[in-house]
Amino acid sequence: MFNSRKLKLALALGFISLSGQAQTSKIDSLAIRKIYDEALANGKSYENLQYLCTQIGPRLSGSEGATKAVNWTKQLMEGMGFDRVYLQEVTVPHWVRGEKEKAKIKYKNGSQEVQICALGGSVGTGKKGIKAPVIEVKTFEELQRLGREKVQGKIVFYNRPMNQQYIDAFDAYSGAVDQRGSGALEAAKLGAVGAIVRSMNLAIDDYPHTGGMRYEENGTKIPSAAISTLGAETLSRLLKEDPDLQLEFTMNPQTLPEVPSHNVIGEIKGTEFPDEIIVVGGHLDSWDLAQGAHDDGSGCMQAIEVLRLMKALNIKPKRTIRAVMFMNEENGNRGGRKYAELATTNKEKHLAAIESDNGGFTPRGFALEATPAKIEKVKKWQDVLAPYGLAEIGPGHGGTDIGPLRSDNIALIGFKPDSQRYFVYHHAANDTFDKVNRRELELGGASMAALVYLLDKYGL
Amino acid sequence: MFNSRKLKLALALGFISLSGQAQTSKIDSLAIRKIYDEALANGKSYENLQYLCTQIGPRLSGSEGATKAVNWTKQLMEGMGFDRVYLQEVTVPHWVRGEKEKAKIKYKNGSQEVQICALGGSVGTGKKGIKAPVIEVKTFEELQRLGREKVQGKIVFYNRPMNQQYIDAFDAYSGAVDQRGSGALEAAKLGAVGAIVRSMNLAIDDYPHTGGMRYEENGTKIPSAAISTLGAETLSRLLKEDPDLQLEFTMNPQTLPEVPSHNVIGEIKGTEFPDEIIVVGGHLDSWDLAQGAHDDGSGCMQAIEVLRLMKALNIKPKRTIRAVMFMNEENGNRGGRKYAELATTNKEKHLAAIESDNGGFTPRGFALEATPAKIEKVKKWQDVLAPYGLAEIGPGHGGTDIGPLRSDNIALIGFKPDSQRYFVYHHAANDTFDKVNRRELELGGASMAALVYLLDKYGL
Repeated sequence: MFNSRKLKLALALGFISLSGQAQTSKIDSLAIRKIYDEALANGKSYENLQYLCTQIGPRLSGSEGATKAVNWTKQLMEGMGFDRVYLQEVTVPHWVRGEKEKAKIKYKNGSQEVQICALGGSVGTGKKGIKAPVIEVKTFEELQRLGREKVQGKIVFYNRPMNQQYIDAFDAYSGAVDQRGSGALEAAKLGAVGAIVRSMNLAIDDYPHTGGMRYEENGTKIPSAAISTLGAETLSRLLKEDPDLQLEFTMNPQTLPEVPSHNVIGEIKGTEFPDEIIVVGGHLDSWDLAQGAHDDGSGCMQAIEVLRLMKALNIKPKRTIRAVMFMNEENGNRGGRKYAELATTNKEKHLAAIESDNGGFTPRGFALEATPAKIEKVKKWQDVLAPYGLAEIGPGHGGTDIGPLRSDNIALIGFKPDSQRYFVYHHAANDTFDKVNRRELELGGASMAALVYLLDKYGL
Repeated sequence: MFNSRKLKLALALGFISLSGQAQTSKIDSLAIRKIYDEALANGKSYENLQYLCTQIGPRLSGSEGATKAVNWTKQLMEGMGFDRVYLQEVTVPHWVRGEKEKAKIKYKNGSQEVQICALGGSVGTGKKGIKAPVIEVKTFEELQRLGREKVQGKIVFYNRPMNQQYIDAFDAYSGAVDQRGSGALEAAKLGAVGAIVRSMNLAIDDYPHTGGMRYEENGTKIPSAAISTLGAETLSRLLKEDPDLQLEFTMNPQTLPEVPSHNVIGEIKGTEFPDEIIVVGGHLDSWDLAQGAHDDGSGCMQAIEVLRLMKALNIKPKRTIRAVMFMNEENGNRGGRKYAELATTNKEKHLAAIESDNGGFTPRGFALEATPAKIEKVKKWQDVLAPYGLAEIGPGHGGTDIGPLRSDNIALIGFKPDSQRYFVYHHAANDTFDKVNRRELELGGASMAALVYLLDKYGL
């Protein structure tokens, strides 16, 4: 049982200001309260996400799912009566996984299957697979010290876990993802025949997590796969018992010719400054293994919800508000680059771009890539945002898709939900709709809408 | 990909102060950083919770599970080498559910089963069950307006949903739980034969959520059950189609004679002021339907973890730190009352009591029941706590178990994790270990330990 929390209500209604520097008004507090009321009572992002995840599903660039997602989100926004809904054509890579990967550790006392998945962009092993001894490393420095003599002909096993001690899970990701991105490339330089990378996962379980990797343009291309964290622990333990064990793995992904795809855009025209644009967006493509519920169906459905909330509440923005579903964040960022290219060509003026690509979890704040003056201005809005759990407003990463828009004239803003659970699901088969909580998702959309409301009203 | 976050690191290390009024030091920042490091890298509350949930399971007061939980937590703390581990005997109610409840709606075109569960403390229907027409109300005022004429002989169906528009889910709970607590009592006054209450659940699903209810001492006792939110929606819809439909339900819980049980206490003796006590606690009993993972296995395992962290980090507190596993929060609060009674008898001086009974979710802050001066003092510690997501520090509810300790000399402090998901699981069969995220749980224990560190060092 809990006592009433009058203080919080007073804060939510703006009757008490947390800061002497507040530049917002009671009108803003009430407008923002209405945005959250509508989102929590009648929000549509959860049911829209359910459709995207369960009726369309995986949507890697170039796939049938991606095409379906483009058509469906266009129809969805058209049905909402936005002022304009349109597509931007963009050419995207087309990588396909092929049949399910297999991997087996063969050690002196037996053999053990482990769960792996090809990393996005990797070449295959051929039908016969690769069988070779394994050398475990934690860092590229360690790999260099081992040198060609100890690496040649082997499979390099990158097994540096994400550092649990970071509070923000994205910091742990940043500190480990070099293994996935450049592991194959560095191993190939020393004559390795394959690279196996511990999944970017903060939990110990049996889901392998895919993700992007790259080769050097003229370098040797060796197959690279992620192994589940449980599999990584097993492989490491068995290597201690039997350093001569061999890993046998088969995967046959293919890189097909590039294909046309699309960014999907919906907009509400500004009443006073229609040429000033505020973007809210997420990326519509997902990895092929899962429904892409948190990454990034959530962000797309929240972006659409921002515009729906404005229509439902009869908020007529002064500036043009655009929901952008970017294509191909996962393996190319072609959509983000195309959007920025066309913005330049069309001499569009962007005031701010907000991206939601950190999962559909409970809101924590916003991270800004912007001039110090712009960051200070947004921080002063904290008094009307804090009652909704948006306490963390400060410098940080905006988003991959909006990154190419970077300039001193625009604020790139990353929506920050709580990060603790994200890397249990990220790029893995368990990133499914049932992992999303309705209230957390709708609160995220409302938080983005509240910030759009303030950006539109006060400029930046 | 994410940029480095040097600002946050600087904040975490205390090199930047968020407030000119900071009373903490860099030493505190570093000590707290070590607490989180230990909890995230080597925390034991998650694996302890797994044992409690999966090897012991449900542990309603008076049950075999409760006895096992008492013995196991005592052993667990003894194994951790605390200065003293002991039991406090407390007599508790012994209510048992009996065989699984059944309910069926019989309407003109057919019949439909719905999921119900007896509310804790309810009487039964008898073997033959109850079959009666249903009258739906949203409030007690509405019930009064209907009057005896329209209520007599019927089953009153309380169907006011938790209000989705509250940001803090506990506020929504406070606003709806009167139906569960007093629904049967008020219905009986007007001659109703049963009371069916919409589950206290913010999601629409098919789990009925049990919980405490009460009768008037000399009032008529009618059977009272919770219906799943999905079942409530169905019943309400069918009532509109056929107001004469009947609900048939059977449940046969029993109230058995009271039995002895125990609070379980572990303590680390203070080096300077051993007679000043700081309590960290949760309640060891759970409802009988589930494992009680979030409610409140989490809080108990976090309380033990606070002491384990101090031992592991060789923190020697000036004051005595006690982990208390209270018995019988769910249907009597006998453990909480017994603890306070013995504290008075033994003339113990309690500085503060922190309770974790809001689930094992990601930390948000602390709610304080204390004098304004004490609240202000704790708020000034925000600069060393904010880097860990503990932004919400202010007045609020402490906890049911620690409530009986209330006085001006003590601060009652409720640990506040994020509230959004709690009421999907609260008192229902899906409150299981798999719903707990390891990092979120361990962060909670670390947050409580950080506050204990500051309370111990600076007093209050």
